[in-house]
Amino acid sequence: MKISARNQFHGEVTSITLGAVNAEVTVTLKGGEQIVAIVTNESVKSLNLKPGSEAVALIKASSVLVMTEGSGVRLSARNSLAGKITALEKGPIHAEVSISLPSGELVHATITHAACDALGLAEGAAATAVIKAPLVILGVPG
Amino acid sequence: MKISARNQFHGEVTSITLGAVNAEVTVTLKGGEQIVAIVTNESVKSLNLKPGSEAVALIKASSVLVMTEGSGVRLSARNSLAGKITALEKGPIHAEVSISLPSGELVHATITHAACDALGLAEGAAATAVIKAPLVILGVPG
Amino acid sequence: MKISARNQFHGEVTSITLGAVNAEVTVTLKGGEQIVAIVTNESVKSLNLKPGSEAVALIKASSVLVMTEGSGVRLSARNSLAGKITALEKGPIHAEVSISLPSGELVHATITHAACDALGLAEGAAATAVIKAPLVILGVPG
Repeated sequence: MKISARNQFHGEVTSITLGAVNAEVTVTLKGGEQIVAIVTNESVKSLNLKPGSEAVALIKASSVLVMTEGSGVRLSARNSLAGKITALEKGPIHAEVSISLPSGELVHATITHAACDALGLAEGAAATAVIKAPLVILGVPG
Repeated sequence: MKISARNQFHGEVTSITLGAVNAEVTVTLKGGEQIVAIVTNESVKSLNLKPGSEAVALIKASSVLVMTEGSGVRLSARNSLAGKITALEKGPIHAEVSISLPSGELVHATITHAACDALGLAEGAAATAVIKAPLVILGVPG
Repeated sequence: MKISARNQFHGEVTSITLGAVNAEVTVTLKGGEQIVAIVTNESVKSLNLKPGSEAVALIKASSVLVMTEGSGVRLSARNSLAGKITALEKGPIHAEVSISLPSGELVHATITHAACDALGLAEGAAATAVIKAPLVILGVPG
Protein backbone atom coordinates (compact mmCIF):
# COMPACT_ATOMS: atom_id res chain seq x y z
CA MET A 1 0.00 0.00 0.00
CA LYS A 2 1.26 3.46 -0.79
CA ILE A 3 0.98 4.95 2.63
CA SER A 4 3.70 5.98 5.06
CA ALA A 5 2.54 3.93 8.08
CA ARG A 6 5.66 1.94 8.89
CA ASN A 7 3.55 -0.96 10.18
CA GLN A 8 0.97 -2.52 7.87
CA PHE A 9 -0.57 -5.74 9.11
CA HIS A 10 -2.85 -7.64 6.74
CA GLY A 11 -5.55 -9.84 8.19
CA GLU A 12 -9.23 -10.50 8.62
CA VAL A 13 -11.79 -8.78 10.83
CA THR A 14 -12.78 -11.31 13.50
CA SER A 15 -14.93 -9.20 15.82
CA ILE A 16 -16.67 -5.82 15.98
CA THR A 17 -18.21 -4.27 19.11
CA LEU A 18 -20.18 -1.08 18.49
CA GLY A 19 -20.35 1.59 21.21
CA ALA A 20 -22.21 4.92 21.19
CA VAL A 21 -19.68 6.66 18.90
CA ASN A 22 -16.71 4.33 18.68
CA ALA A 23 -16.33 0.68 17.75
CA GLU A 24 -13.72 -1.83 18.77
CA VAL A 25 -12.56 -3.93 15.81
CA THR A 26 -10.27 -6.96 16.09
CA VAL A 27 -8.15 -7.91 13.10
CA THR A 28 -6.55 -11.37 13.19
CA LEU A 29 -3.33 -11.60 11.19
CA LYS A 30 -2.30 -14.57 9.07
CA GLY A 31 0.21 -15.59 11.75
CA GLY A 32 -2.52 -15.58 14.38
CA GLU A 33 -1.67 -12.30 16.16
CA GLN A 34 -4.60 -10.03 16.95
CA ILE A 35 -4.68 -6.25 16.61
CA VAL A 36 -7.47 -4.28 18.30
CA ALA A 37 -8.42 -0.92 16.75
CA ILE A 38 -10.82 1.73 18.00
CA VAL A 39 -12.48 3.52 15.07
CA THR A 40 -15.73 5.47 14.77
CA ASN A 41 -18.97 3.59 14.11
CA GLU A 42 -19.20 5.71 10.99
CA SER A 43 -15.94 4.24 9.68
CA VAL A 44 -17.22 0.71 10.32
CA LYS A 45 -20.22 1.58 8.16
CA SER A 46 -18.38 3.47 5.42
CA LEU A 47 -15.70 0.75 5.09
CA ASN A 48 -18.42 -1.91 5.34
CA LEU A 49 -16.42 -3.80 7.96
CA LYS A 50 -17.85 -7.18 9.00
CA PRO A 51 -16.45 -10.32 10.56
CA GLY A 52 -14.61 -11.99 7.69
CA SER A 53 -13.72 -8.72 5.92
CA GLU A 54 -10.18 -8.40 4.64
CA ALA A 55 -8.50 -5.46 6.40
CA VAL A 56 -5.12 -3.91 7.04
CA ALA A 57 -4.14 -2.41 10.40
CA LEU A 58 -1.92 0.64 9.90
CA ILE A 59 0.24 1.81 12.80
CA LYS A 60 2.77 4.64 12.73
CA ALA A 61 6.14 3.66 14.24
CA SER A 62 5.79 6.66 16.60
CA SER A 63 2.66 5.06 18.13
CA VAL A 64 4.55 1.97 19.30
CA LEU A 65 6.15 1.58 22.76
CA VAL A 66 8.77 -1.05 23.50
CA MET A 67 8.65 -3.12 26.69
CA THR A 68 11.29 -5.60 27.82
CA GLU A 69 10.63 -8.82 29.65
CA GLY A 70 10.15 -8.70 33.34
CA SER A 71 8.61 -5.23 33.36
CA GLY A 72 6.38 -6.44 36.18
CA VAL A 73 3.54 -4.25 35.03
CA ARG A 74 0.16 -4.77 33.41
CA LEU A 75 -0.93 -2.08 30.94
CA SER A 76 -4.19 -0.54 29.71
CA ALA A 77 -2.91 -0.69 26.11
CA ARG A 78 -4.86 -3.33 24.22
CA ASN A 79 -2.11 -4.50 21.88
CA SER A 80 1.02 -6.34 23.03
CA LEU A 81 3.11 -8.14 20.43
CA ALA A 82 6.04 -10.14 21.80
CA GLY A 83 9.12 -10.97 19.73
CA LYS A 84 12.81 -10.39 19.33
CA ILE A 85 14.71 -7.24 18.32
CA THR A 86 16.19 -7.75 14.85
CA ALA A 87 17.33 -4.22 14.04
CA LEU A 88 18.16 -1.09 15.97
CA GLU A 89 19.13 2.21 14.39
CA LYS A 90 19.97 5.27 16.44
CA GLY A 91 19.69 8.94 15.49
CA PRO A 92 20.43 11.96 17.69
CA ILE A 93 16.91 12.19 19.19
CA HIS A 94 15.12 8.98 18.17
CA ALA A 95 15.93 5.32 17.64
CA GLU A 96 14.07 2.91 15.38
CA VAL A 97 13.58 -0.56 16.84
CA SER A 98 12.39 -3.49 14.71
CA ILE A 99 10.84 -6.45 16.51
CA SER A 100 10.28 -9.75 14.73
CA LEU A 101 7.20 -11.69 15.88
CA PRO A 102 7.07 -15.52 15.99
CA SER A 103 4.97 -15.47 12.80
CA GLY A 104 7.74 -13.58 10.99
CA GLU A 105 5.75 -10.31 10.98
CA LEU A 106 7.96 -7.24 11.78
CA VAL A 107 6.90 -4.38 14.05
CA HIS A 108 8.75 -1.05 13.86
CA ALA A 109 8.84 1.45 16.72
CA THR A 110 10.43 4.86 16.99
CA ILE A 111 11.27 5.71 20.57
CA THR A 112 13.62 8.31 22.04
CA HIS A 113 17.32 7.57 21.93
CA ALA A 114 17.34 8.15 25.72
CA ALA A 115 14.64 5.52 26.35
CA CYS A 116 16.47 3.08 24.08
CA ASP A 117 19.65 3.51 26.13
CA ALA A 118 17.78 3.38 29.46
CA LEU A 119 16.25 0.03 28.49
CA GLY A 120 19.57 -1.31 27.21
CA LEU A 121 17.90 -2.52 24.02
CA ALA A 122 20.08 -4.65 21.75
CA GLU A 123 19.66 -6.80 18.67
CA GLY A 124 18.68 -10.33 19.61
CA ALA A 125 16.98 -9.37 22.89
CA ALA A 126 13.35 -10.22 23.62
CA ALA A 127 10.98 -7.26 23.47
CA THR A 128 7.27 -6.51 23.27
CA ALA A 129 5.64 -3.86 21.10
CA VAL A 130 2.78 -2.09 22.89
CA ILE A 131 0.14 -0.10 20.98
CA LYS A 132 -3.00 1.73 22.19
CA ALA A 133 -6.06 0.70 20.17
CA PRO A 134 -7.16 4.26 19.20
CA LEU A 135 -3.87 4.78 17.36
CA VAL A 136 -4.56 1.95 14.90
CA ILE A 137 -6.02 2.97 11.51
CA LEU A 138 -7.92 0.37 9.47
CA GLY A 139 -7.85 0.10 5.70
CA VAL A 140 -9.79 -2.02 3.24
CA PRO A 141 -9.02 -2.72 -0.42
CA GLY A 142 -10.23 0.22 -2.52
CA MET B 1 -0.29 30.71 18.75
CA LYS B 2 2.61 29.85 21.00
CA ILE B 3 2.30 26.10 20.91
CA SER B 4 4.55 23.51 19.32
CA ALA B 5 1.91 21.76 17.19
CA ARG B 6 3.43 21.99 13.72
CA ASN B 7 -0.02 22.13 12.13
CA GLN B 8 -2.43 24.86 13.23
CA PHE B 9 -5.54 25.23 11.10
CA HIS B 10 -7.83 28.18 11.80
CA GLY B 11 -11.51 27.86 10.97
CA GLU B 12 -15.06 27.73 12.24
CA VAL B 13 -16.93 24.95 14.00
CA THR B 14 -19.57 23.73 11.57
CA SER B 15 -20.94 20.66 13.36
CA ILE B 16 -20.88 18.96 16.75
CA THR B 17 -22.18 15.45 17.51
CA LEU B 18 -22.22 14.51 21.18
CA GLY B 19 -21.73 10.87 22.24
CA ALA B 20 -21.73 9.37 25.74
CA VAL B 21 -18.24 10.62 26.61
CA ASN B 22 -16.75 11.92 23.39
CA ALA B 23 -17.92 14.42 20.81
CA GLU B 24 -17.13 14.70 17.12
CA VAL B 25 -16.45 18.30 16.11
CA THR B 26 -16.00 19.47 12.51
CA VAL B 27 -13.94 22.59 11.85
CA THR B 28 -14.22 24.10 8.37
CA LEU B 29 -11.13 26.02 7.29
CA LYS B 30 -11.15 29.28 5.36
CA GLY B 31 -10.09 27.41 2.23
CA GLY B 32 -13.05 25.02 2.61
CA GLU B 33 -11.19 21.95 3.93
CA GLN B 34 -12.80 20.16 6.87
CA ILE B 35 -11.02 18.74 9.91
CA VAL B 36 -12.85 16.30 12.18
CA ALA B 37 -11.71 16.14 15.83
CA ILE B 38 -12.81 13.78 18.60
CA VAL B 39 -12.70 15.55 21.97
CA THR B 40 -14.48 14.88 25.26
CA ASN B 41 -17.98 16.30 25.83
CA GLU B 42 -16.45 18.10 28.77
CA SER B 43 -14.06 19.97 26.47
CA VAL B 44 -16.96 20.99 24.22
CA LYS B 45 -18.61 22.48 27.29
CA SER B 46 -15.52 24.09 28.85
CA LEU B 47 -14.45 25.65 25.52
CA ASN B 48 -18.08 26.63 24.84
CA LEU B 49 -17.87 25.17 21.32
CA LYS B 50 -20.92 25.77 19.10
CA PRO B 51 -21.56 25.85 15.39
CA GLY B 52 -20.14 29.20 14.31
CA SER B 53 -17.41 29.29 17.00
CA GLU B 54 -13.95 30.31 15.89
CA ALA B 55 -11.54 27.41 16.53
CA VAL B 56 -8.08 26.17 15.67
CA ALA B 57 -7.32 22.52 14.97
CA LEU B 58 -3.87 21.59 16.31
CA ILE B 59 -2.15 18.50 14.91
CA LYS B 60 1.36 17.29 15.76
CA ALA B 61 3.42 16.44 12.67
CA SER B 62 3.99 12.98 14.16
CA SER B 63 0.22 12.31 13.99
CA VAL B 64 0.10 12.69 10.21
CA LEU B 65 0.48 9.82 7.72
CA VAL B 66 1.31 10.39 4.06
CA MET B 67 -0.50 8.50 1.31
CA THR B 68 0.32 8.65 -2.39
CA GLU B 69 -2.19 8.51 -5.19
CA GLY B 70 -3.43 5.16 -6.30
CA SER B 71 -3.08 3.54 -2.90
CA GLY B 72 -6.20 1.53 -3.78
CA VAL B 73 -7.32 1.54 -0.18
CA ARG B 74 -10.07 3.18 1.87
CA LEU B 75 -9.17 4.12 5.43
CA SER B 76 -10.94 4.49 8.78
CA ALA B 77 -9.08 7.77 9.42
CA ARG B 78 -11.55 10.64 9.20
CA ASN B 79 -9.21 13.29 7.81
CA SER B 80 -7.68 13.15 4.32
CA LEU B 81 -6.14 16.30 2.89
CA ALA B 82 -4.90 16.02 -0.70
CA GLY B 83 -2.19 18.28 -2.10
CA LYS B 84 1.33 18.41 -3.45
CA ILE B 85 4.66 17.89 -1.69
CA THR B 86 6.48 21.22 -1.47
CA ALA B 87 9.29 20.35 0.92
CA LEU B 88 11.05 17.21 2.08
CA GLU B 89 13.77 17.13 4.70
CA LYS B 90 15.48 13.91 5.76
CA GLY B 91 17.15 13.08 9.06
CA PRO B 92 18.69 9.75 10.10
CA ILE B 93 15.46 8.28 11.51
CA HIS B 94 12.65 10.61 10.43
CA ALA B 95 11.75 12.77 7.45
CA GLU B 96 9.55 15.86 7.50
CA VAL B 97 7.18 16.14 4.55
CA SER B 98 5.28 19.36 3.81
CA ILE B 99 2.14 19.10 1.66
CA SER B 100 0.52 22.18 0.16
CA LEU B 101 -3.28 22.00 -0.14
CA PRO B 102 -5.20 23.66 -3.02
CA SER B 103 -6.23 26.46 -0.61
CA GLY B 104 -2.57 27.23 0.07
CA GLU B 105 -2.73 25.73 3.58
CA LEU B 106 0.41 23.65 4.43
CA VAL B 107 0.33 20.28 6.26
CA HIS B 108 3.51 18.97 7.88
CA ALA B 109 4.10 15.28 8.58
CA THR B 110 7.00 13.51 10.24
CA ILE B 111 7.30 9.93 9.02
CA THR B 112 10.18 7.46 9.18
CA HIS B 113 13.02 7.94 6.72
CA ALA B 114 12.42 4.31 5.66
CA ALA B 115 8.74 4.92 4.85
CA CYS B 116 9.68 8.08 2.93
CA ASP B 117 12.11 6.09 0.78
CA ALA B 118 9.71 3.16 0.34
CA LEU B 119 7.03 5.53 -1.01
CA GLY B 120 9.54 7.32 -3.24
CA LEU B 121 8.28 10.70 -2.03
CA ALA B 122 9.65 13.70 -3.90
CA GLU B 123 8.99 17.43 -4.07
CA GLY B 124 6.29 18.21 -6.60
CA ALA B 125 4.54 14.84 -6.28
CA ALA B 126 0.87 14.53 -5.32
CA ALA B 127 0.29 13.26 -1.76
CA THR B 128 -2.48 13.06 0.80
CA ALA B 129 -2.12 13.78 4.53
CA VAL B 130 -4.15 11.33 6.66
CA ILE B 131 -5.03 12.09 10.30
CA LYS B 132 -7.11 10.14 12.84
CA ALA B 133 -9.74 12.39 14.47
CA PRO B 134 -8.77 11.59 18.12
CA LEU B 135 -5.31 13.05 17.49
CA VAL B 136 -6.67 16.52 16.71
CA ILE B 137 -6.65 19.05 19.58
CA LEU B 138 -9.02 22.02 19.42
CA GLY B 139 -8.21 25.49 20.68
CA VAL B 140 -10.28 28.64 21.05
CA PRO B 141 -9.13 32.22 21.58
CA GLY B 142 -8.32 32.77 25.26
CA MET C 1 9.69 0.05 34.63
CA LYS C 2 11.21 -1.57 31.59
CA ILE C 3 9.17 0.21 28.96
CA SER C 4 10.23 2.84 26.46
CA ALA C 5 7.65 5.51 27.38
CA ARG C 6 9.86 8.51 28.13
CA ASN C 7 7.34 9.80 30.67
CA GLN C 8 6.33 7.54 33.56
CA PHE C 9 4.34 9.23 36.30
CA HIS C 10 3.62 7.24 39.45
CA GLY C 11 0.53 8.08 41.47
CA GLU C 12 -2.85 6.97 42.71
CA VAL C 13 -6.16 6.65 40.89
CA THR C 14 -8.44 9.35 42.33
CA SER C 15 -11.45 9.14 40.01
CA ILE C 16 -12.98 6.88 37.36
CA THR C 17 -15.90 7.80 35.09
CA LEU C 18 -17.21 4.96 32.95
CA GLY C 19 -18.75 5.70 29.53
CA ALA C 20 -20.27 3.29 27.02
CA VAL C 21 -16.92 1.96 25.80
CA ASN C 22 -14.29 4.26 27.28
CA ALA C 23 -13.53 5.40 30.79
CA GLU C 24 -11.87 8.55 32.04
CA VAL C 25 -9.36 7.83 34.80
CA THR C 26 -7.60 10.50 36.86
CA VAL C 27 -4.22 9.68 38.40
CA THR C 28 -2.96 12.08 41.07
CA LEU C 29 0.84 12.20 41.34
CA LYS C 30 2.77 12.43 44.57
CA GLY C 31 3.52 16.09 43.85
CA GLY C 32 -0.21 16.79 43.42
CA GLU C 33 -0.36 17.04 39.62
CA GLN C 34 -3.24 15.24 37.96
CA ILE C 35 -3.10 13.20 34.75
CA VAL C 36 -6.32 12.27 32.95
CA ALA C 37 -6.28 9.11 30.80
CA ILE C 38 -8.95 7.72 28.49
CA VAL C 39 -8.80 3.91 28.43
CA THR C 40 -11.39 1.27 27.56
CA ASN C 41 -13.83 0.09 30.24
CA GLU C 42 -12.35 -3.35 29.63
CA SER C 43 -8.92 -2.12 30.70
CA VAL C 44 -10.40 -0.62 33.89
CA LYS C 45 -11.80 -4.07 34.63
CA SER C 46 -8.76 -6.14 33.64
CA LEU C 47 -6.36 -3.89 35.58
CA ASN C 48 -8.84 -3.77 38.47
CA LEU C 49 -8.54 0.03 38.67
CA LYS C 50 -10.35 1.68 41.59
CA PRO C 51 -10.01 4.95 43.46
CA GLY C 52 -6.96 4.41 45.65
CA SER C 53 -5.22 2.00 43.24
CA GLU C 54 -1.55 2.57 42.64
CA ALA C 55 -1.00 3.35 38.95
CA VAL C 56 1.57 4.71 36.54
CA ALA C 57 0.66 7.01 33.65
CA LEU C 58 2.85 6.29 30.61
CA ILE C 59 3.18 8.97 27.93
CA LYS C 60 5.41 8.82 24.86
CA ALA C 61 7.47 11.97 24.36
CA SER C 62 5.99 12.23 20.85
CA SER C 63 2.50 12.64 22.39
CA VAL C 64 3.44 15.83 24.23
CA LEU C 65 3.00 19.36 22.85
CA VAL C 66 4.83 22.36 24.29
CA MET C 67 3.02 25.66 24.91
CA THR C 68 4.64 28.88 26.05
CA GLU C 69 3.08 31.41 28.36
CA GLY C 70 0.71 33.91 26.91
CA SER C 71 -0.54 31.63 24.16
CA GLY C 72 -3.94 33.28 24.61
CA VAL C 73 -5.72 30.07 23.79
CA ARG C 74 -7.76 27.48 25.68
CA LEU C 75 -7.37 23.89 24.50
CA SER C 76 -9.47 20.73 24.38
CA ALA C 77 -6.51 18.67 25.62
CA ARG C 78 -7.20 17.53 29.17
CA ASN C 79 -3.65 17.58 30.51
CA SER C 80 -1.61 20.77 30.96
CA LEU C 81 1.53 20.62 33.11
CA ALA C 82 3.28 23.96 33.68
CA GLY C 83 6.97 24.21 34.52
CA LYS C 84 10.33 25.39 33.30
CA ILE C 85 12.52 24.08 30.46
CA THR C 86 15.58 22.39 31.95
CA ALA C 87 17.03 20.69 28.88
CA LEU C 88 16.76 21.11 25.14
CA GLU C 89 18.45 18.86 22.60
CA LYS C 90 18.14 19.42 18.86
CA GLY C 91 18.42 16.90 16.05
CA PRO C 92 17.94 17.52 12.33
CA ILE C 93 14.15 16.89 12.35
CA HIS C 94 13.13 16.75 16.01
CA ALA C 95 14.05 18.40 19.29
CA GLU C 96 13.63 16.91 22.75
CA VAL C 97 12.40 19.38 25.37
CA SER C 98 12.48 18.54 29.10
CA ILE C 99 10.17 20.54 31.38
CA SER C 100 10.59 20.44 35.16
CA LEU C 101 7.33 20.74 37.13
CA PRO C 102 7.15 22.52 40.51
CA SER C 103 7.02 19.09 42.22
CA GLY C 104 10.33 18.16 40.61
CA GLU C 105 8.70 15.73 38.17
CA LEU C 106 10.18 15.96 34.63
CA VAL C 107 8.13 15.87 31.41
CA HIS C 108 9.85 15.07 28.11
CA ALA C 109 8.46 16.14 24.73
CA THR C 110 9.70 15.52 21.23
CA ILE C 111 8.56 18.24 18.86
CA THR C 112 9.82 19.26 15.43
CA HIS C 113 13.02 21.26 15.27
CA ALA C 114 11.05 23.85 13.27
CA ALA C 115 8.39 24.26 15.98
CA CYS C 116 11.11 24.53 18.62
CA ASP C 117 12.76 27.38 16.72
CA ALA C 118 9.44 29.09 15.93
CA LEU C 119 8.58 29.16 19.64
CA GLY C 120 12.06 30.37 20.56
CA LEU C 121 12.31 27.72 23.29
CA ALA C 122 15.33 28.02 25.57
CA GLU C 123 16.56 26.46 28.80
CA GLY C 124 15.18 28.31 31.80
CA ALA C 125 12.05 29.57 30.04
CA ALA C 126 8.56 28.80 31.34
CA ALA C 127 6.64 26.21 29.29
CA THR C 128 3.59 23.99 29.58
CA ALA C 129 3.38 20.37 28.45
CA VAL C 130 0.02 19.56 26.83
CA ILE C 131 -1.21 15.96 26.42
CA LYS C 132 -4.49 14.55 25.04
CA ALA C 133 -6.04 12.06 27.46
CA PRO C 134 -6.44 9.19 24.93
CA LEU C 135 -2.66 9.12 24.45
CA VAL C 136 -2.01 8.22 28.08
CA ILE C 137 -1.46 4.51 28.86
CA LEU C 138 -2.04 3.26 32.40
CA GLY C 139 -0.01 0.57 34.11
CA VAL C 140 -0.39 -1.21 37.42
CA PRO C 141 2.17 -3.31 39.31
CA GLY C 142 2.32 -6.82 37.86
